[in-house]
Amino acid sequence: MRVLGIDPGLTRCGMGVVEGSVGRPLTLVDVNVLRTSADLPVAERLVTIEKGIDAWIDEYAPDAVAVERVFARSDSSTIMGTAQASGIALVTAARRGLPVATHTPSEVKAAVSGSGRADKAQVGAMVTRILRLDAPPKPADAADALALAITHIWRGGAQARIDAALRAASLDAAVAAGRSRT
Amino acid sequence: MRVLGIDPGLTRCGMGVVEGSVGRPLTLVDVNVLRTSADLPVAERLVTIEKGIDAWIDEYAPDAVAVERVFARSDSSTIMGTAQASGIALVTAARRGLPVATHTPSEVKAAVSGSGRADKAQVGAMVTRILRLDAPPKPADAADALALAITHIWRGGAQARIDAALRAASLDAAVAAGRSRT
Repeated sequence: MRVLGIDPGLTRCGMGVVEGSVGRPLTLVDVNVLRTSADLPVAERLVTIEKGIDAWIDEYAPDAVAVERVFARSDSSTIMGTAQASGIALVTAARRGLPVATHTPSEVKAAVSGSGRADKAQVGAMVTRILRLDAPPKPADAADALALAITHIWRGGAQARIDAALRAASLDAAVAAGRSRT
Repeated sequence: MRVLGIDPGLTRCGMGVVEGSVGRPLTLVDVNVLRTSADLPVAERLVTIEKGIDAWIDEYAPDAVAVERVFARSDSSTIMGTAQASGIALVTAARRGLPVATHTPSEVKAAVSGSGRADKAQVGAMVTRILRLDAPPKPADAADALALAITHIWRGGAQARIDAALRAASLDAAVAAGRSRT
């Protein structure tokens, strides 16, 4: 499957496309960071982000979109812009009928590094290793977007296996129930 | 001028259209509250809000859109959804090339009631009086959206007069400079 990961932000919005499936090597398709100037009105900056995401969905036709889940934190002056950009990312994908998921920063860190408290450098190093790149993607927003896409493929795969197991179990139960009636 | 005011929210998104100009009576064109269920994924809720706003822009062809400006407050669990909905409102208008402005809750309260600390009931009462309605619009999100549109018309008018005065002054200055050269 091909996943577009989006690390939302008004000033820098990371976008990374990764292809692959659980248990097989993952491949980097493309990575980029959309930048918008703080001198522009927020509405214009959001339109630029929307166009950028739309263009990438057109170009790379992902099977799913994974967006970083943002939380209210009083210690951040940029959190409202991040939330607005995340809303644009969600709606741009959902409007086309693409599956959209959100993953928290801790989930992403845990998925790629094994620790929910990994720092930026560790995430960058793991993304580099997982995708067999020559160097960590820069800036951090690029690495974070790729980490989101990787997380989505791995979690999605795990979830799909759980769902399949549950379906199989309920089928077994149904078959067993059918047999007990005959 | 005709203004669409939007009080953004994921659960309730107020939309109010007001027509008029500074110094003349303002008229209510229409008011509504978009509701989306908390049981649905955020991305789907945002798409519903986008479609609702788009439909109203199509139907009422406003000259401008005014959106309530949201601030990060750690005491609110709904602030991220509000920020995401505000992003959708801004982008839906800006993408069509419509002028978009944001006004803070204090600015809106001050514009319609004379006090930046007016409560919901006062804002509702003033909106009722300004638009010569029979009763305050319900719920509060509807009244807030109308108050935003009213604020935009009144502030826009003041701003337009200031801009005109500045243009006239610089024209006078240019004329004076021209005369001094002849």
